[in-house]
Amino acid sequence: MAEEPTVTPWEAEAFVDYSRLIKIFGTKPITDEVVELATEVLGEEHFMLRRRVFYSHRDFDVFLNAFKRGERVALYTGRGPSSHTHLGHILPWVFTKWLQDRLGAHLFFQVTDDEKFFHEVGAKLEGTNSMAYENALDIIAVGFDPSKTHLIIDSEDIRYLYPIACRVAKKVTYSVAKATFGFTQSTNVGMLFFPTIQIAVCFLPTELFRESTYVLIPAGIDQDPYWRIARDVAPTLGYPKPCQIHGKLLPGLGPEGKMSSSKPETAIYTIDDPEVARRKVMRAFTGGQPTAELQRRLGGNPDRCSVFKMLEMLLEPNDAVVERFRSNCLSGSVLCGECKRAVAEYVVKFLKEHQRRRERAKDLLPKFLIRNKFEPPAVRR
Amino acid sequence: MAEEPTVTPWEAEAFVDYSRLIKIFGTKPITDEVVELATEVLGEEHFMLRRRVFYSHRDFDVFLNAFKRGERVALYTGRGPSSHTHLGHILPWVFTKWLQDRLGAHLFFQVTDDEKFFHEVGAKLEGTNSMAYENALDIIAVGFDPSKTHLIIDSEDIRYLYPIACRVAKKVTYSVAKATFGFTQSTNVGMLFFPTIQIAVCFLPTELFRESTYVLIPAGIDQDPYWRIARDVAPTLGYPKPCQIHGKLLPGLGPEGKMSSSKPETAIYTIDDPEVARRKVMRAFTGGQPTAELQRRLGGNPDRCSVFKMLEMLLEPNDAVVERFRSNCLSGSVLCGECKRAVAEYVVKFLKEHQRRRERAKDLLPKFLIRNKFEPPAVRR
Repeated sequence: MAEEPTVTPWEAEAFVDYSRLIKIFGTKPITDEVVELATEVLGEEHFMLRRRVFYSHRDFDVFLNAFKRGERVALYTGRGPSSHTHLGHILPWVFTKWLQDRLGAHLFFQVTDDEKFFHEVGAKLEGTNSMAYENALDIIAVGFDPSKTHLIIDSEDIRYLYPIACRVAKKVTYSVAKATFGFTQSTNVGMLFFPTIQIAVCFLPTELFRESTYVLIPAGIDQDPYWRIARDVAPTLGYPKPCQIHGKLLPGLGPEGKMSSSKPETAIYTIDDPEVARRKVMRAFTGGQPTAELQRRLGGNPDRCSVFKMLEMLLEPNDAVVERFRSNCLSGSVLCGECKRAVAEYVVKFLKEHQRRRERAKDLLPKFLIRNKFEPPAVRR
Repeated sequence: MAEEPTVTPWEAEAFVDYSRLIKIFGTKPITDEVVELATEVLGEEHFMLRRRVFYSHRDFDVFLNAFKRGERVALYTGRGPSSHTHLGHILPWVFTKWLQDRLGAHLFFQVTDDEKFFHEVGAKLEGTNSMAYENALDIIAVGFDPSKTHLIIDSEDIRYLYPIACRVAKKVTYSVAKATFGFTQSTNVGMLFFPTIQIAVCFLPTELFRESTYVLIPAGIDQDPYWRIARDVAPTLGYPKPCQIHGKLLPGLGPEGKMSSSKPETAIYTIDDPEVARRKVMRAFTGGQPTAELQRRLGGNPDRCSVFKMLEMLLEPNDAVVERFRSNCLSGSVLCGECKRAVAEYVVKFLKEHQRRRERAKDLLPKFLIRNKFEPPAVRR
């Protein structure tokens, strides 16, 4: 476990001490009370809440109570299109889809081809924009409601965001941006401005619906710096403060780190051939012991096992099944090979289904693009 | 005359030593050779060139020669909509219209409601956007060709600029922006990004016409920092370096400074009642002597006279007439009151004609908006 967990919008470890993150970021843990409130308001409990895959929040309770009172709410999440989508990206989207279904809410889905272009050495805007459309297919494949899900591809849909971003930008000095994001003298001015583009989406629903709208953002806690600024400026701009719920990062299949495109052999991509994915699982780093003999004697450690985590955090909603995997591991009664074969089966099944939907998403894409559905908000209201 | 001329994009004196500005900014003076080349290529001499109202340039000769060779060219200028238009703003537009007529070129006219909003304490985007449309009427009233003149209102037409601005932004570090514009820790991030939006228009013609296009920018030398960065990044982005021609600032009617909205009594606005404008001229600070007796004996100083400068720089194309005013002043044979009455007549005539055209501009506006004429350039080319 990292002594000093590294979690910024551009870098994040896995197997971090999440209770420490809550302290560092100054957020609140998802307590039993919050889960109960969510279950009451949303009429159903989600395993990602119950298992604290979503573990931290800012004003999730405020958001739920606003919805309960009948106030207008919306959802917002995003994707930085630096690579093809992998299971680590899909995880919060599955939860977001459930939220959309339960709330009947509009979801604004930002794809930040601008930011990935600004940030990544050697990236071309053509490339990040092209990847935005690849990722869009995965987003659509998750099953969001086309009539209520609105994709914003930054470089092309900037008109929806820029006037709001301008109003945010006027309130954010270089000094604040530097302190919040760790910018330096050599940071490019695109990176310096970009936070206002990401923040703008928090306030877009209020502009589009011409009605004060509570926005909930399911995302990684690494994105928290954006929302801290958003929450600071919201009242002076006349918008409700955006609420957040923070998900844990799916570990990669290697010995450490989150599932990450920078280590492709540790990531299961949605476009991986299912048999390739199966082999990745079979080669994954686990929480098992060095030898079968030790494993049978001492048992494994499912909480440090990328294979078990995939099951627990994403692929198996049934608690009893998850607990069987856990206890089989702890007791040493099932060895890693057998366990991997079982989890690989889940992965293969997931990918086959996702890839079928992803193919269909090509036709559905126009129905999801915000530019085909809303007029940009007027600059003068 | 200011010892250290203050000329930045946000501040400028009048009666500055323009030859010193050329040295400070590292530009080239408009020489007789350049005027001859312009006259040859454009088929006509303009008094603002002959009188060196446009006195400095970067690659104006390169631009003229490109046009002569039959290469595609375009014009670009802009307006920061902080106030109603006054004669100091109109001056470069008159010259730009002449250039458009002679070149038959497209003109991209940027109205930076975003930048004025970022820069001015207490400004609202609604306000600067509203003023953008007021200024647009004056731009149109100057007589530009509607089929070839394209107004870009930044906050609304950002889609035309943002992808190009992103590519520029990736090449401009905070450190460079700070050194070029004097930004500080308390500069807001809108100001930090804005230069890329202004620079983007330099490259828009090449994108829209899908053909390498030489761009000439008639503007004040105070805008030079933007174009220095534009010229630095142009080759690596595959665009021709933008060329500039720099105009002098029309002096205000007070004892010092350019005509400026920060001193409304020293400025003649295009919407001023012509009789109000006449009174402003009659009250103007001149280059005359303290008493009529001294004036008759010593003569006045037309080169320090805001009233004479209005005539020489903007209102009277006929050199012989201008010289008569000058010699009458120098000899003391005409006193300031009489001279002012004559120049006020020019101003009244100018305003009446402009206001007639400005009224008609309300109907013409849609023909000038870029969003009604071009599709935004594709992000992936």
